[in-house]
Amino acid sequence: MSSAKTVEWVNGRVRMIDQTRVPEKFVYVTFNDYRQVAKAIKNMVVRGAPAIGVAAAMGMALAAKHSSRRKSKDQFFKDLQAAGIVLCKSRPTARNLSWAVERILGKAQATSGGVQEIVREIVEEAQNIAREDIEANRKIGDFGSSLIKDNYTVLTHCNTGTFATVSYGTALAPIRTAFKQGKNVRVIATETRPRLQGARLTTFELLSDKIPVTLIVDGAVGYVMKRGMVQAAIVGADRITRQVVANKVGTYLIALAAHANLVPFYVAAPSSTFDLNEMHAVEIEERKPQEVTHIAGKRIPPRGVGVFNPAFDITPVELVKGFITENGILRPEDLGRVA
Amino acid sequence: MSSAKTVEWVNGRVRMIDQTRVPEKFVYVTFNDYRQVAKAIKNMVVRGAPAIGVAAAMGMALAAKHSSRRKSKDQFFKDLQAAGIVLCKSRPTARNLSWAVERILGKAQATSGGVQEIVREIVEEAQNIAREDIEANRKIGDFGSSLIKDNYTVLTHCNTGTFATVSYGTALAPIRTAFKQGKNVRVIATETRPRLQGARLTTFELLSDKIPVTLIVDGAVGYVMKRGMVQAAIVGADRITRQVVANKVGTYLIALAAHANLVPFYVAAPSSTFDLNEMHAVEIEERKPQEVTHIAGKRIPPRGVGVFNPAFDITPVELVKGFITENGILRPEDLGRVA
Repeated sequence: MSSAKTVEWVNGRVRMIDQTRVPEKFVYVTFNDYRQVAKAIKNMVVRGAPAIGVAAAMGMALAAKHSSRRKSKDQFFKDLQAAGIVLCKSRPTARNLSWAVERILGKAQATSGGVQEIVREIVEEAQNIAREDIEANRKIGDFGSSLIKDNYTVLTHCNTGTFATVSYGTALAPIRTAFKQGKNVRVIATETRPRLQGARLTTFELLSDKIPVTLIVDGAVGYVMKRGMVQAAIVGADRITRQVVANKVGTYLIALAAHANLVPFYVAAPSSTFDLNEMHAVEIEERKPQEVTHIAGKRIPPRGVGVFNPAFDITPVELVKGFITENGILRPEDLGRVA
Repeated sequence: MSSAKTVEWVNGRVRMIDQTRVPEKFVYVTFNDYRQVAKAIKNMVVRGAPAIGVAAAMGMALAAKHSSRRKSKDQFFKDLQAAGIVLCKSRPTARNLSWAVERILGKAQATSGGVQEIVREIVEEAQNIAREDIEANRKIGDFGSSLIKDNYTVLTHCNTGTFATVSYGTALAPIRTAFKQGKNVRVIATETRPRLQGARLTTFELLSDKIPVTLIVDGAVGYVMKRGMVQAAIVGADRITRQVVANKVGTYLIALAAHANLVPFYVAAPSSTFDLNEMHAVEIEERKPQEVTHIAGKRIPPRGVGVFNPAFDITPVELVKGFITENGILRPEDLGRVA
């Protein structure tokens, strides 16, 4: 897995692994229009906060290229901002998306010279963001591996590996690094309904790396902790504020079960996921009912049932033992200072 | 739904609704051999602690009928005990199963007269157990409805309605009765992986009764509580000891989320579910990996992944605000006294 790239700039276009088809198929899709990228983010062809941040940056690069013949810089910037709005709206919860769009816009505005030069800088910056993602994940792996002792079983949720980033992962990075260090480490992966990213993607990655992995349903999290089967829980994040962590729905239950059973609960995320200066409430995306009602193409409940399908939930930072970042491990009480 | 019977003694045989096929099909299956009943319990053709208790009692009645030409009472009792062991082993966690088998054996031993007379008494007793189940559920509905105020949304887990009993249900009984009393009551039903009893059975029952129901994935329990969308949680139970409640996997997480968000958490169960004098640990059934790896006939994770599939979990009684029984509402601290 470690050589595959989830999102990549290839010959002036954006290439992604189509994650909706893994593990059945492992196919790439390539886009040359930022609207296609926005749609791919919305439909979860690419998912995972850092990965969709990089995808959005590359979507901005496509938009910049498309407008590269604009004579007026004003019109070029208007095009770019319009693309940024479309990309940010594709999924509202992950901070990395708006972070990447803001960074591209900032780079564009800071670049002197004509439109062509700005386009070159934007394309370069999008690739920088992708490179930095991998570096950040390696550092998260280094810092986080110190928390994983020999013979630990680590519980994780959703997918936070290569598929959720450009490569290597966030919450899976400490596990990977600990494993490489020769520690006997095992993983319990939740299946992660409704989209089953744990069952489909996390097991695929860990099996590829030969890291032992056991799959459980999301409801079994409390039981495995109470039975003493788990020594640490590590999850990723879509947005971290001073008060809360927004992450894949089910995360809050893992944090509560960890707290009740004295299992340390860690959140692994690069600094692009942190949103420490904003005081607004986190918007939790609600997705379509069909994700819940249909599994493998088959309708499960009778027609007429109402469905509530939040993609994420909210965990108070007080339940987090540590935030594993590329700059070290932060405690919840450090967040205000870092901001 | 309220006129359908999940398990019934019909013309000297046991008739059940095949719950593995609901809501797609609503078909009955009929058995005349206790081994078929044990297999139906194991394969979850019939499931729900009270329902499998009644099924086991009727399985004992089939076994008694089958041995009714035994000349020796000793041999008859040996046959009956052998059947009881098979039925009890079909699923280990629910108390109601061994309770029903013990009650039938007790009745048999207390009956004077010949084998034929004992058989008649056993068949009668199995039907008494079924009748008493419905009565108990109505009383659970009466007592429990006092806990549901107008405009409450009640969260429930798995299926605890007619399908889990002979009729009317345990945790769904207070909801049904409150609704009949004219209260505006809504239900949030968890889908309940891996077997999806919430998505398949609970939504079916509530839609039939025109009680508004919203389906969520199991991982969304914490979020709906944190959002203030739930005013009470009511679940059923498979076994209640002085220390813990064993119930469908995921129950413990609901109890933790309820506790953290000041939502009262109730357990509704008839006295046949209580096991207050035994001090042994509750055996938690582990079921086959295919329940987790395959949904609607399709394999989800890659081959080679390990699976841990506990059917139940363990909730400390301290997290329970009240036990709703046919004899009234008990607090956790009452359990020792009642024993």
